[in-house]
Amino acid sequence: MADSRPIGVFDSGLGGLTVVKELKKYLPFENIVYFGDTGRVPYGTKSKETIEKYAIQDEHFLLQKDVKLIVAACGTVSSVAAHTGDNLPVPFVGVVEHSVKAAVKATKNKKIGIIGTAATISSGAHEKAIKKLMPDAQVFANNCNLFVPIVEEGWYNQNDAVAVETAARYLEPLKTAGVDTLIMGCTHYPVLEPIIAKIMGDTVTLINMGEATAVYVAELLKEKGLLNETKNPSYSFFVSDKHKSFRSQAERLLDSEIKETQVEQVDINSL
Amino acid sequence: MADSRPIGVFDSGLGGLTVVKELKKYLPFENIVYFGDTGRVPYGTKSKETIEKYAIQDEHFLLQKDVKLIVAACGTVSSVAAHTGDNLPVPFVGVVEHSVKAAVKATKNKKIGIIGTAATISSGAHEKAIKKLMPDAQVFANNCNLFVPIVEEGWYNQNDAVAVETAARYLEPLKTAGVDTLIMGCTHYPVLEPIIAKIMGDTVTLINMGEATAVYVAELLKEKGLLNETKNPSYSFFVSDKHKSFRSQAERLLDSEIKETQVEQVDINSL
Repeated sequence: MADSRPIGVFDSGLGGLTVVKELKKYLPFENIVYFGDTGRVPYGTKSKETIEKYAIQDEHFLLQKDVKLIVAACGTVSSVAAHTGDNLPVPFVGVVEHSVKAAVKATKNKKIGIIGTAATISSGAHEKAIKKLMPDAQVFANNCNLFVPIVEEGWYNQNDAVAVETAARYLEPLKTAGVDTLIMGCTHYPVLEPIIAKIMGDTVTLINMGEATAVYVAELLKEKGLLNETKNPSYSFFVSDKHKSFRSQAERLLDSEIKETQVEQVDINSL
Repeated sequence: MADSRPIGVFDSGLGGLTVVKELKKYLPFENIVYFGDTGRVPYGTKSKETIEKYAIQDEHFLLQKDVKLIVAACGTVSSVAAHTGDNLPVPFVGVVEHSVKAAVKATKNKKIGIIGTAATISSGAHEKAIKKLMPDAQVFANNCNLFVPIVEEGWYNQNDAVAVETAARYLEPLKTAGVDTLIMGCTHYPVLEPIIAKIMGDTVTLINMGEATAVYVAELLKEKGLLNETKNPSYSFFVSDKHKSFRSQAERLLDSEIKETQVEQVDINSL
């Protein structure tokens, strides 16, 4: 029996659309409802308590849309506030756990790097998860606070001097440490993948959290008998603020067109 | 008669502290209450409606603190939502009007440049105010979205390659246009003044909105008989989120020490 209820996906802003992109690829028959908290973006520089409060409101919103599963498509929420998904009436999937599994599988020298927002890195969530699976792994982490605004400014061309210099500065300690696997621990970062790959070199495997998570969600829905068979699935996007450059940014991250009629603004503070 | 009620100052985050720094300089006997909406920062990339809503909540909070005057120490609010201060029971001062007056006074070739956030620049607020005072002025504007995160990251050393390259890219069109006066239309920007000054050259006058506003507030309080004579004025800081790097960032912008006991977190959404 097919379950046509949508998959719910939320993020602090639009970065989670890179996860939606991967979900569409691995689960082409699923309906998806997305919520981006663009009225309060970013989460990654805010405190744990504030991030928890916002995450609970985001989850509450998606439950009202009768979703069958919730993906926290936000490195910050998945690192700092994943426990807010513990007692929901539907399965809850973060982006940390499965990207960590993919990294542990990929590494040969057991030196794994992680880049993310300040809140993600200071939480140590990836490191804890890695050490559980591979106690003798060495983990090297760095926060890359300028990557999100650089992507949002559209300065992600692979020869962009600001993007390249910024990436080189943030990645230098990880390169020096000799990591052979690097988790891109923020959903905006896949847009910078060509620059990151060039700096890190061919021998380093980059882990895209969205892809690792989409593969897991596909397995989980199959296992629980929750897969859908819709031929023309629908995609709905909700945001807490709809600024002028919303569509150009969203389409860049999702890597496909978004129609004005697919997007609705909601008041997240009232939840 | 002295009026010991505090001056209320608010901003989307911590940038407004550069205005407090100037107020302290020009009004050393005044008590000041500051509110920084760090839980929802930044405003500059959000929509007009959202900025208006947030500004009203911020003003409401300061009124509860029995302030005698409110300064919107935020380029974005002053540009997009200054009308939210129209019907308050106390005088309301934005940072646009008086920086524009200073720019009009300074320019010789009547070519004035403005840099600010996306919302500030697209509002055209500075341009409208300039044209009112100097109808034949030519106005050149550019948004500098990466300046705020660069300052918050602490990359403001005058030789910082990322800051210099970013500034050069944003300022290039204004330099080419031949402006002789440049309004730094966002309260974070004075931290980058040495870099901006070097790129623009000696012949260009930089206008610091905080300073222009502090000079006006001093005149206004005198004129209305609202000046205070406290010898040891108190400074209180309220924020909607208190993240780990709060104090280091705040002290950098205020350019003086902030004690933990001076800072309190409040729930702005409940107002």
